[in-house]
Amino acid sequence: MRDVTAETLTKTFLDYCGPETSPRLRFLLEQLAGHLHAFVMDTGLTHAEWRKAIEILTKAGEITDDERNEFVLLSDVLGVSSLVDMVNTKAEATSSSVLGPFHILGAPDLAYGGDLKRDNDGATLVVKGVVRDTEGNPVSGAAIELWQTADNGLYSNLDPKQDRYNLRARLTSVENGEYGLTTIRPAPYTVPDDGPVGELLHATGRHPWRPSHLHFIITAPGYHSLVTEVFPSDDPYLDEDAVFGVRGDLIMEYVERTDPGFVPEEYEARDKLTNPYYSVDFDFVLAVDDGA
Amino acid sequence: MRDVTAETLTKTFLDYCGPETSPRLRFLLEQLAGHLHAFVMDTGLTHAEWRKAIEILTKAGEITDDERNEFVLLSDVLGVSSLVDMVNTKAEATSSSVLGPFHILGAPDLAYGGDLKRDNDGATLVVKGVVRDTEGNPVSGAAIELWQTADNGLYSNLDPKQDRYNLRARLTSVENGEYGLTTIRPAPYTVPDDGPVGELLHATGRHPWRPSHLHFIITAPGYHSLVTEVFPSDDPYLDEDAVFGVRGDLIMEYVERTDPGFVPEEYEARDKLTNPYYSVDFDFVLAVDDGA
Repeated sequence: MRDVTAETLTKTFLDYCGPETSPRLRFLLEQLAGHLHAFVMDTGLTHAEWRKAIEILTKAGEITDDERNEFVLLSDVLGVSSLVDMVNTKAEATSSSVLGPFHILGAPDLAYGGDLKRDNDGATLVVKGVVRDTEGNPVSGAAIELWQTADNGLYSNLDPKQDRYNLRARLTSVENGEYGLTTIRPAPYTVPDDGPVGELLHATGRHPWRPSHLHFIITAPGYHSLVTEVFPSDDPYLDEDAVFGVRGDLIMEYVERTDPGFVPEEYEARDKLTNPYYSVDFDFVLAVDDGA
Repeated sequence: MRDVTAETLTKTFLDYCGPETSPRLRFLLEQLAGHLHAFVMDTGLTHAEWRKAIEILTKAGEITDDERNEFVLLSDVLGVSSLVDMVNTKAEATSSSVLGPFHILGAPDLAYGGDLKRDNDGATLVVKGVVRDTEGNPVSGAAIELWQTADNGLYSNLDPKQDRYNLRARLTSVENGEYGLTTIRPAPYTVPDDGPVGELLHATGRHPWRPSHLHFIITAPGYHSLVTEVFPSDDPYLDEDAVFGVRGDLIMEYVERTDPGFVPEEYEARDKLTNPYYSVDFDFVLAVDDGA
């Protein structure tokens, strides 16, 4: 269009998209362009503000590498990542929550009741629960990937002092859907704030802390995969997670214990407990994958 | 918030912004988060689509360097850059249009009637006109920066065969607001389509062509600066500029001429014209900068 105006721009943009555009892509672009254009018009965005936005994206590109993706972080602190989790959470299933940038492939298997704590500092945490479906039926044979920070707030792949797979494991739910292991309490940590996202946090008086959490990916044949994380009810950052990951149903309770009899006999670390230790009982609910 | 939902997310995000947030930044973020969140909800954006968006931004970061900014290009092909120009165009002044990535500082001065064509291939183009204000008064002493492609569609800084400042100049309007020079007709060219933006263009059946144009920046004390470009009425891409830069008032007419008497005597290249040559008469209208 030789005479495109602010009022006709979004339609002109859509008219540019040819018949080879997939219907879904056309819909996504229609919504994206519509919202971007409305943002510019509603704000009367200045050239200086546009240049600042380009500068933020350019700096984000410069700081992004294989170990750190500033665009994911930007999506996280704007609440976009969490909203994608929310709109994709299956009805009556456990809420999804951010995968985060610290997951790595290849975590070793851990048997039912196995010990992930090993030589790690920190109080022992017994984590157990049941994987079930939305009708309450136990799901056995589900693969449960777990990863978490060490007591210093660092994940193994960011801490040269930890083995690559420290505090990472792949469990399997047993015949009644149960899973269980011993580990340590994860620690709160900050998202990286030395880049352009940090600049945004500082300009808005926001802190970079996340409440401590255990990450989980649960997969089982016939069910939607669940990527989530669970948070202790006593964490000081529970109400101000920098990346909006907390949901009501993802809050776990740490129960302080001194009774060794609470821990089932087949748990590997049962005889090495120091008091007090803590326990968490957290069930995961999977939705049937009906292909929809 | 420990129980943030899709419905409360935007408010939660805003509540995170502390009192040190400037009112303008708070407003921009309110609008940005609101539109981004609405986009995710209205589209039911999937995790795979979110990952694709992150991949596009990551690749854009990888291909961006000092000579090429893929984020600017993304803004351009989505119509965002042009919309920023539109909302910042001053009433009754000449429309703004994209600065583009090919402007470089330090173009040499060219006297009134000077010749920019020199040894360049292509038909001679006489460009002249008047700089005036919105009330019709001539503006003398305005600085007019001009840059354009050579006959091969390349800007000097992308073409090792051209001098760094080939077809770039800084003129000054004379006492009656007039400016004038001889140059060549610029050529249409394509925006770079070998990166993630090109992937988007290909997926939507869009071509990367821009209609040929002359870039201008006009500055004068007491007036709003004008960044714009002007397009010939006979360009084949006038109705399908890949970056939405064409406005009705930015279209110029090439007039084919053989009469050497049309060119004022003081024009440097007057006696070197080959026929036919072309002329363009284009006036720029500046808005008074009243500090608003």
